[in-house]
Amino acid sequence: MTYCAGVLVGGGLVMIADTRTNAGLDDISTYRKLHLFQREDHACLALSTAGNLSVSQTVVSLLQEGLENPETGEIETLLSAPSMFKAAQLIGKAIRRVRTVDGPGLKEAEIRFDVSFLFGGQIKGGPMRLYMIYSAGNFIECSHDAPFLQVGEHKYGKPILDRAVSHGTDLYDALKIALISMDSTMRSNLSVGLPIDIAVIRRDTLVPELVHRIEIGEPYFHDLRERWSTALRAAHMAIPSPPYGRPARSGSRNGL
Amino acid sequence: MTYCAGVLVGGGLVMIADTRTNAGLDDISTYRKLHLFQREDHACLALSTAGNLSVSQTVVSLLQEGLENPETGEIETLLSAPSMFKAAQLIGKAIRRVRTVDGPGLKEAEIRFDVSFLFGGQIKGGPMRLYMIYSAGNFIECSHDAPFLQVGEHKYGKPILDRAVSHGTDLYDALKIALISMDSTMRSNLSVGLPIDIAVIRRDTLVPELVHRIEIGEPYFHDLRERWSTALRAAHMAIPSPPYGRPARSGSRNGL
Repeated sequence: MTYCAGVLVGGGLVMIADTRTNAGLDDISTYRKLHLFQREDHACLALSTAGNLSVSQTVVSLLQEGLENPETGEIETLLSAPSMFKAAQLIGKAIRRVRTVDGPGLKEAEIRFDVSFLFGGQIKGGPMRLYMIYSAGNFIECSHDAPFLQVGEHKYGKPILDRAVSHGTDLYDALKIALISMDSTMRSNLSVGLPIDIAVIRRDTLVPELVHRIEIGEPYFHDLRERWSTALRAAHMAIPSPPYGRPARSGSRNGL
Repeated sequence: MTYCAGVLVGGGLVMIADTRTNAGLDDISTYRKLHLFQREDHACLALSTAGNLSVSQTVVSLLQEGLENPETGEIETLLSAPSMFKAAQLIGKAIRRVRTVDGPGLKEAEIRFDVSFLFGGQIKGGPMRLYMIYSAGNFIECSHDAPFLQVGEHKYGKPILDRAVSHGTDLYDALKIALISMDSTMRSNLSVGLPIDIAVIRRDTLVPELVHRIEIGEPYFHDLRERWSTALRAAHMAIPSPPYGRPARSGSRNGL
């Protein structure tokens, strides 16, 4: 399983991804799911992947090596795209290309063609953007009102993003909240696990400000997990007990 | 969509269920999904349902009216079961009975036979138990280590249960945590909604100590939601910022 999230706030973009892959419960490996594409002074792009590893790796390779445009004969790579929208379209095209080649064989083996991507970043002259691209090659863009997108095992980590992230959130607070969201996911689904890759791209800089892998035992993340657990315990303990039907006031007990 | 949870702690059992049903997004109704079966001094049972409403209602009706045992000819109802285990088996039998009758027609209409139940309570002379029963009629029991079970839209509300509930949790703290779990689910999935039904059965009493419906605008639940939001905000703000690659200390910036 996989969990990847992207958060696009005023200050820039945060991308986070776990690295655990599994082909069955007894075949677990570590693979990078967060990929950076950068050309100095031109573009800084981050792509994270969920789903079938063979499909997502092939898509990433196609985007690096380039797809031939049948109309112009040109080789188009992710870094040659003139805009984020065009780049997202190219990812969709690469997914469909892989489906054409590998889809029938996967179908025969009864393996779902299951893949999704988060794609964020900025290309010179255009705005910073964050997209989610589906296995059919279609895509959506994150909104100002809900400035995050997730792929993979997304539900456990969604409540904290729903509550804590807005467009005005500080860039490194957004990173912190993304780490809390990852922690919630890891607690509830063991197939999402460390190490975690993170990337931060500040708006209008066109370079990654931070690229980091959080390894097992890293003190800050360990401390964040402990503090979050402690704070949640304190938070629910600080809420008054329900006023309904306590035995001490059984006079007010509710009937059937 | 539906969210139901059951928590079995030392003090007893908490059951919670929302009431929203939808046949498509534009056809939303309120239905009770938490049902109590009680015979004084003999048994106090709670059954909550998720999935296809016609199936779950038919199963509940069968359990009330009784199923004929083909071997003995006796009519068996949920309240005539001699043990919680036997009662859970009877629920499984009722599900399979409904599948035999309604399954083919549903299949023809391409509607999944999708139903699941939480079943908890106590029958005189036996221990208090909590089961989850699947659409095939098989079931699992909750464990001492993870003393809760969920059906329906369960992922959003699982992190708080994972962290906060243990067998030693006070009965009304368990209710409070179940309400927080419901709140997290309602925030992230609009198709789970108020009113909420709750039931509390104290161990070895064989009567429901609390049966209550939380309606829209109820002050305690509204206050719980506000306090939880505020506490979560405070909790993540109290966690130190990530030490990685802050621009202020760009000397330590991480490379690709």
